Amino acid sequence: MVTTNFDAPSPLLAADVDGGTFRLRPATRDDLPAIVGLLADDALGAGREAGADMAPYEQAFAAIDADPAHLLIVGELVPAGGAEGSVVATFQLSFLPGISRQGAWRSQIEGVRVDARHRNRGIGELMVRWSIEESRRRGCSLMQFTTHKTRTAAHRFYERLGFEASHEGMKLAL
Amino acid sequence: MVTTNFDAPSPLLAADVDGGTFRLRPATRDDLPAIVGLLADDALGAGREAGADMAPYEQAFAAIDADPAHLLIVGELVPAGGAEGSVVATFQLSFLPGISRQGAWRSQIEGVRVDARHRNRGIGELMVRWSIEESRRRGCSLMQFTTHKTRTAAHRFYERLGFEASHEGMKLAL
Repeated sequence: MVTTNFDAPSPLLAADVDGGTFRLRPATRDDLPAIVGLLADDALGAGREAGADMAPYEQAFAAIDADPAHLLIVGELVPAGGAEGSVVATFQLSFLPGISRQGAWRSQIEGVRVDARHRNRGIGELMVRWSIEESRRRGCSLMQFTTHKTRTAAHRFYERLGFEASHEGMKLAL
Repeated sequence: MVTTNFDAPSPLLAADVDGGTFRLRPATRDDLPAIVGLLADDALGAGREAGADMAPYEQAFAAIDADPAHLLIVGELVPAGGAEGSVVATFQLSFLPGISRQGAWRSQIEGVRVDARHRNRGIGELMVRWSIEESRRRGCSLMQFTTHKTRTAAHRFYERLGFEASHEGMKLAL
């Protein structure tokens, strides 16, 4: 007999981190305060987020959740011997069709954040490597993102994982 | 009485260029050879496209056409006194939800190409300015794209239109 426990779906990834278990799973609406907290706890994000009003975040979550082209993911850390995990990381992965490069699908990662208290333990690498594999599994032939030029440690991190800073990332506030 | 001529839908934009009329409209499947030709006629694109096999392009077109988040646009030039236009330009504009920046929608432009015989006549600027206005109209608060670091003339063009090369554009072939 196959039984399904909807309260505890299979994680997208589970790995040992710091003696505990790090798990990736799709974000739910209840994760939004933790996600916004991670986005705001950042040199650039601090001036861009406003967690007091959750309504715009909830609208954005609804749009992402309704479209299978976009995955909003959280990473939970369950301490050794613990049962409950807490959200310590997040990112969004999107799958975009295009005509160029022989009709290539490309994936795009966005808003990669790890709680400052849990950095340098391989969590970011676990998330990006999972994203690379998921992008391949879905038939993407290119993965891409933009990262602010001031994030030099992030550039080294991504270059170590094989990414190349071959392009300028241009932005216009509307 | 309102009449609708489905054979000649209203263009998204119409402007005088070189004494003729430049029009933007959504691409159809029949435009694919012209679009692929524009993508291939490019220093970087020449090594990436393979117009002999149209099947992957047709699959990509079907995915784009089925999803209102992505607009594949062509620009036609109708010569003075002429009735028929020919495709001289193309781009894709996508609208992406996200949690960061207070749940901001962002637009992303991709594959902007103008036929080499019709450059430096304002066609690129008409397309990008239309994209900026359409992005605003759809509630996006940011417009973005990546452009290869070797495309220095393109960088100056986009900076003149207000874009800032604030980010690194990182890519990984999968």
